[in-house]
Amino acid sequence: MINQLVKNIKKTEAPIVVGLDPMLSYVPEHVQKKAFEEYGETLEGAAEAIWQFNKAIVDQTYDLVPAVKPQIAMYEQFGIPGLAAFKKTVDYCKEKGLVVIGDIKRGDIGSTSAAYAVGHLGRVQVGSQSYVPFDEDFATVNPYLGSDGVNPFLKVCKEEKKGMFILVKTSNPSSGEFQDQMIDGRPLYELIGEKVAAWGEEHMGEEYSYVGAVVGATYPEMGKILRKIMPKAYILVPGYGAQGGQGKDLVHFFNEDGLGAIVNSSRGIIAAYKQEKYAKYGEEAFAEASRAAVEDMAADIRGALRR
Amino acid sequence: MINQLVKNIKKTEAPIVVGLDPMLSYVPEHVQKKAFEEYGETLEGAAEAIWQFNKAIVDQTYDLVPAVKPQIAMYEQFGIPGLAAFKKTVDYCKEKGLVVIGDIKRGDIGSTSAAYAVGHLGRVQVGSQSYVPFDEDFATVNPYLGSDGVNPFLKVCKEEKKGMFILVKTSNPSSGEFQDQMIDGRPLYELIGEKVAAWGEEHMGEEYSYVGAVVGATYPEMGKILRKIMPKAYILVPGYGAQGGQGKDLVHFFNEDGLGAIVNSSRGIIAAYKQEKYAKYGEEAFAEASRAAVEDMAADIRGALRR
Repeated sequence: MINQLVKNIKKTEAPIVVGLDPMLSYVPEHVQKKAFEEYGETLEGAAEAIWQFNKAIVDQTYDLVPAVKPQIAMYEQFGIPGLAAFKKTVDYCKEKGLVVIGDIKRGDIGSTSAAYAVGHLGRVQVGSQSYVPFDEDFATVNPYLGSDGVNPFLKVCKEEKKGMFILVKTSNPSSGEFQDQMIDGRPLYELIGEKVAAWGEEHMGEEYSYVGAVVGATYPEMGKILRKIMPKAYILVPGYGAQGGQGKDLVHFFNEDGLGAIVNSSRGIIAAYKQEKYAKYGEEAFAEASRAAVEDMAADIRGALRR
Repeated sequence: MINQLVKNIKKTEAPIVVGLDPMLSYVPEHVQKKAFEEYGETLEGAAEAIWQFNKAIVDQTYDLVPAVKPQIAMYEQFGIPGLAAFKKTVDYCKEKGLVVIGDIKRGDIGSTSAAYAVGHLGRVQVGSQSYVPFDEDFATVNPYLGSDGVNPFLKVCKEEKKGMFILVKTSNPSSGEFQDQMIDGRPLYELIGEKVAAWGEEHMGEEYSYVGAVVGATYPEMGKILRKIMPKAYILVPGYGAQGGQGKDLVHFFNEDGLGAIVNSSRGIIAAYKQEKYAKYGEEAFAEASRAAVEDMAADIRGALRR
């Protein structure tokens, strides 16, 4: 899957992930209304609204981007119907040729981590049959429990040729509380970056490893160092746009080959129609506003990389 | 809910959590067969098998224990039907008067953490209606992203009088890789323990805080120190039994009042019938074997606390 991701990035010339994190408040009135007319103001109604919202945005952007990143929390908050909408979104995006990064931030130990890995990236055995429950291409993984938590994911990734992005330095303001703590003169996130590089060597694709890392756009100086520590890891970069990151901050997350990083934007793309800049599209044409936002983001990043 | 948990513990005199982590391989042949006859060897069939397995064990043990801890990964691996079985299990245990600790180990930032909190402990708004999607009483939370990840949970816990257990020192062999790293002369888990105590002060119950901690039974010396750092935090202690912890290791996790800790056992209880010690029950009476295992575990811990 890392090879597919790199191929998609080269084809689109846009190292961009569309974050499909649909808050109900992002979904235009008319989409909500239609869903509620059919299912009522229920969890099923909310799930239908976010699914139709996603579908419209995917239809308008799938030819421009290599990948999407649905954030499972936004679906899980609507219970079982919400998770069914997550699965529908994953399947639809794969049909459209997009690489799907499940932003699940799971992490546990032993057989429990194995169950998450099987559920999201692998296949589960039921008697003589096997099933692919959620079937994302990549998953984000929390490393706090150490190798015991990561190795079961690594095993499934090897079997299924799938990948993961391990949280190294997250984009939020308080990420430093624990991640920046100094250990023998260097921060915890560097130590984790080194582990990512080591885990990554165990499962290499053609140019890059199946084991990537999450490093926030909001910390470009740390990105520069982590880029060197994990030369073969793809870096998934959240925090662009709404969280404050800009194209020029992103340069150091990339390698000399112009590859090695993929930048996520969620709100900035999927709720673009709410920004003054894209107001001309109006609520009805929300997905076209998203397309314009993707084009602008791609131009911003291409421009920054060319300099 | 922390008051309810303490009340249940005093009533049962058993600071025990039954870990409802049903691997399909734990489910006796006859239970699997019946489920597969009805639903086929499908995800629905697997979900039915683990639900019936859980129900039988809950029916045999609910009068002996204060709480259960379903591990969501074991359900999530069976996709949407599995998660529906998780929800059914949560509801059934609550009907039986048990406190339900959702072992979900979620953790993200801002609105994403808020979505998890709402989905598992709170209520979600859909138009003019609100719903309680999963409705556990407590959730386990991963602290790696710092306060930005924990505060949204804290907010929902305050609104709903619910609680959480934050991962501090996990029971697995590699937990030390990051958690034991020394920062200014003391390990990361102590730093996190201090944060747990601070977060806990913001949301106190009668005797204990709504904010607890996870500390593995496999590290009793660390438990002793963490007990002092977080005097008002309930400690959820995994790692008893199958993972190697014993009653005598647990003493220091408790306070002088005999309270302050609750010990989880999963495999040791739910798959007790597979142990030589309980083999006399046979596979058909697997739930009675679980009852006997709970009684033995309670006696072991009571004995250790009396010394």
